Amino acid sequence: MYSRHIVAAAGRGLIGKLGGADCSSLPLSAVLTTQLYKSVKMSQPNRGNKVLTMDTLNPNIKVMEYAVRGPIVARAAEIEKELEKGVKKPFKEVIRANIGDCHATGQKPLTFLRQVVALCTYPELLNSSEFPEDAKDRARRVLQGCKGHSIGAYSDSAGVEVIRRDIAKYIEARDGHPCDYTNVFLSTGASDGIKSILKLLMTGRESSKAGVMVPIPQYPLYTATVAEYNAHLIPYYLNEGNNWSLDMDELERSIQEARPHCVPRALCVINPGNPTGSVLTRQNIENIIKFAKKEKMFILADEVYQHNVYADGAAFYSFKKVLSEMGPEYADMELASFMSTSKGYMGECGMRGGYFEAINLDPEIKLQLIKSVSAKLCPTVAGQTAMDVVVNPPQSGEPSYDLFMKEKNQVLGDLKLKAQMTTATLNSIEGISCNEVAGAMYAFPQIHMPEKALKAAESKGMKADAMYCYRLLEETGICVVPGSGFGQKAGTYHLRMTILPTVEQLKSLLEHFKEFHVRFMNEYK
Amino acid sequence: MYSRHIVAAAGRGLIGKLGGADCSSLPLSAVLTTQLYKSVKMSQPNRGNKVLTMDTLNPNIKVMEYAVRGPIVARAAEIEKELEKGVKKPFKEVIRANIGDCHATGQKPLTFLRQVVALCTYPELLNSSEFPEDAKDRARRVLQGCKGHSIGAYSDSAGVEVIRRDIAKYIEARDGHPCDYTNVFLSTGASDGIKSILKLLMTGRESSKAGVMVPIPQYPLYTATVAEYNAHLIPYYLNEGNNWSLDMDELERSIQEARPHCVPRALCVINPGNPTGSVLTRQNIENIIKFAKKEKMFILADEVYQHNVYADGAAFYSFKKVLSEMGPEYADMELASFMSTSKGYMGECGMRGGYFEAINLDPEIKLQLIKSVSAKLCPTVAGQTAMDVVVNPPQSGEPSYDLFMKEKNQVLGDLKLKAQMTTATLNSIEGISCNEVAGAMYAFPQIHMPEKALKAAESKGMKADAMYCYRLLEETGICVVPGSGFGQKAGTYHLRMTILPTVEQLKSLLEHFKEFHVRFMNEYK
Repeated sequence: MYSRHIVAAAGRGLIGKLGGADCSSLPLSAVLTTQLYKSVKMSQPNRGNKVLTMDTLNPNIKVMEYAVRGPIVARAAEIEKELEKGVKKPFKEVIRANIGDCHATGQKPLTFLRQVVALCTYPELLNSSEFPEDAKDRARRVLQGCKGHSIGAYSDSAGVEVIRRDIAKYIEARDGHPCDYTNVFLSTGASDGIKSILKLLMTGRESSKAGVMVPIPQYPLYTATVAEYNAHLIPYYLNEGNNWSLDMDELERSIQEARPHCVPRALCVINPGNPTGSVLTRQNIENIIKFAKKEKMFILADEVYQHNVYADGAAFYSFKKVLSEMGPEYADMELASFMSTSKGYMGECGMRGGYFEAINLDPEIKLQLIKSVSAKLCPTVAGQTAMDVVVNPPQSGEPSYDLFMKEKNQVLGDLKLKAQMTTATLNSIEGISCNEVAGAMYAFPQIHMPEKALKAAESKGMKADAMYCYRLLEETGICVVPGSGFGQKAGTYHLRMTILPTVEQLKSLLEHFKEFHVRFMNEYK
Repeated sequence: MYSRHIVAAAGRGLIGKLGGADCSSLPLSAVLTTQLYKSVKMSQPNRGNKVLTMDTLNPNIKVMEYAVRGPIVARAAEIEKELEKGVKKPFKEVIRANIGDCHATGQKPLTFLRQVVALCTYPELLNSSEFPEDAKDRARRVLQGCKGHSIGAYSDSAGVEVIRRDIAKYIEARDGHPCDYTNVFLSTGASDGIKSILKLLMTGRESSKAGVMVPIPQYPLYTATVAEYNAHLIPYYLNEGNNWSLDMDELERSIQEARPHCVPRALCVINPGNPTGSVLTRQNIENIIKFAKKEKMFILADEVYQHNVYADGAAFYSFKKVLSEMGPEYADMELASFMSTSKGYMGECGMRGGYFEAINLDPEIKLQLIKSVSAKLCPTVAGQTAMDVVVNPPQSGEPSYDLFMKEKNQVLGDLKLKAQMTTATLNSIEGISCNEVAGAMYAFPQIHMPEKALKAAESKGMKADAMYCYRLLEETGICVVPGSGFGQKAGTYHLRMTILPTVEQLKSLLEHFKEFHVRFMNEYK
């Protein structure tokens, strides 16, 4: 089913291939002409004196890749500066559809959330008549839970207790199952939490590395973290033919092939999917849990898009809920679920709020987790406060309820519209196919590359999808990320675009995208 | 000079000993009776089903210790809850002198800093007449630098450009030497930055680990990070007999003894000192730089207390300034200097603001650093904003200048008074000696333990300084951290206490401390 060649590459080699190899295979000059890197002087100083050179750099960092913020994004920033300087381009502005950064693409912050955080930041505002009483109440509650009643004090490393309790209540209401607040750990965005858990699972031994099952395509945090900790990547391919669902045969294949090379310990699942925009069915989740049980895997459920479900008939089921309803045989499985303030309808990426719930940990492991996160002191308390608003929003009858619901529904309504529009437009283009954008914030269309385009890319020393995305950027100003930054089956070519631009912008983006694509295909047909 | 036994332990074994071994040697029951851990059920579930147990846990996490937030602090929290419930104690409240958490001990936030962060959080306040114009100007400047003009958007991974530029200007003014803003990286507190740099220096090989020189006593972040990355700890002892300065012979000894076991690559220095409260002389810094040059070491200068210098005649010199003035031979040395919003006169720990400046990196390494931090997306933008205010405070003539200077001088003036009071009182007590609290926020007195106390501790399976600190907590409510949490020469016993309680509280604390000490010494004389 999968070529020996690809499968044998699972592990370190593959990280390079999956994690943005399209970028790393670019000539270094292309990388270095970017804004971010502009201060780098190519006239080499006396390297003999340096402690750190590419030869001595931590090899785990060297192999790490992170395409979402890779060179194509840096090139976009450079183009923006060129436009500012008056350089003529066939477009007026760069449209950043490369990263799930809601506010950057014009989404407005939720009034209530910002009011509560501002009140906590500058408590003198509690005396201002400009702020509604429910926002003041929330702020007083958080401040009451802070040491010295200041968000400038460290919180407990796991977070402010009252916020942990609010999160536990939110999870109980979401799932209909109990949640012990001491299982809830605030984090600096979800990424930080994911690393906190993955860290525990490392074996610390070169001879028998921890194996971490990661979906392909994936969000590059996973391969980056696996690389950083020198773990063994076990890539399993999502089934593009079935809405990017998890295929049990494929899970089985990937673990069997990896077993001689590592100790498989963790299964990462992203639902709703990034970069795929898929939403898993309950049945699929049950099967995944059964597989994890059989193989004795710790499940990491990346559920940061739990509010982002658009497709008719689709619904978000948390792994914890499903696991809790599968009977006593499954009830003691280890599972961590991750959440964030960055996504959903709030989109507060810069706030760096997040949490995870870790259930069924061995009691000693829970102590070790507490110890391990304490070396980071605590997550940002303002970010924790933002997280509190997400799990404890204004209730019906409270002064801020109507505005909050209006703002929330506006964002989610627009996202639904944009998801439909994106799916429909992409599938109307010859040479492109795209699964429905059922959730999250992304489309991950497949580009059916003409043979000539593949050869042209090869002659340039680039991956074909990278060449496609670079040209798209240079010719239209649209910034997206090549599929190879997330991983894809050999011989397929994708790209990830967000659906975050405003409805009007997205319409125009899709038109320009279509024109570009037709041009590209004609050129290489 | 140093016993073979101690020196031979340098490396993994010693991490356990240095990093809070006093705590880990407590009976587990003592650890588990704490508030933090209260949900841990001692009735063991079926461990055979668990992926993660103490046997399978990442061994690098297992050996990691972090005394500043260790079990004695958890016990303090438990006592607070007991007091709330009306349990009778010989004191009315717990005084937390265990952690440099300024706001938790009553320090008020700086008005201007909080105004700017609140304005950025809720920009509607830019229309309010309650806020001074200079605060609004600062907020507008930061928002202008944020994508979508929102602190809810991700910033560049290295930070908001305008803030990086402000930091560069601050460094230039501080040192009188140029600073390239692209060498400045914002971070989530200083700890995050320190880990970002240490990470690069790892060898990734078990057979030849990276050697990291860490002062003893030290802030436990260093040994914790060395443990987490499975590096080789090279502990060098600070000279207590000479104000905790760095002794060249001792640096020489430590590196020579470590050389067979690792590849020494990094030298960490904390100045002003934590937990020592020392301030290095310029001459000492020059000698350290010469040593680093000779041994080809990357210098990590933890300079988060650069605003906290109290002793007459003492002054803060940044490693960069000194290095820049030692002639061309030293000018290309690799150095990273770390700063934070958490300390200084602002004490904004919960904001998690920080930065580092990394100079003379090989250009390719700089690219790798950018890539490596990008997997964390970005530091909290509110924390970055707080950092901006620290490096770009109100200027003379601006509306907020007078209040800002009054608040700043009040905090620093009180700290100076408390530093003097603490040094004087501690040295007036028989059986205690303490170097001058010249800077930072800590006293690190030596307790001259009577033989009988050592035996009593041994019979309890505890380190003597841990026994001392536990008794101090139980009998007086004063929470401090045993010296073994920071490391100390064998046969010496210390504790770290902060000077952060208010002047009145600290006076009372020192009195109660003295009474306790006299009682303790009488009991064991």
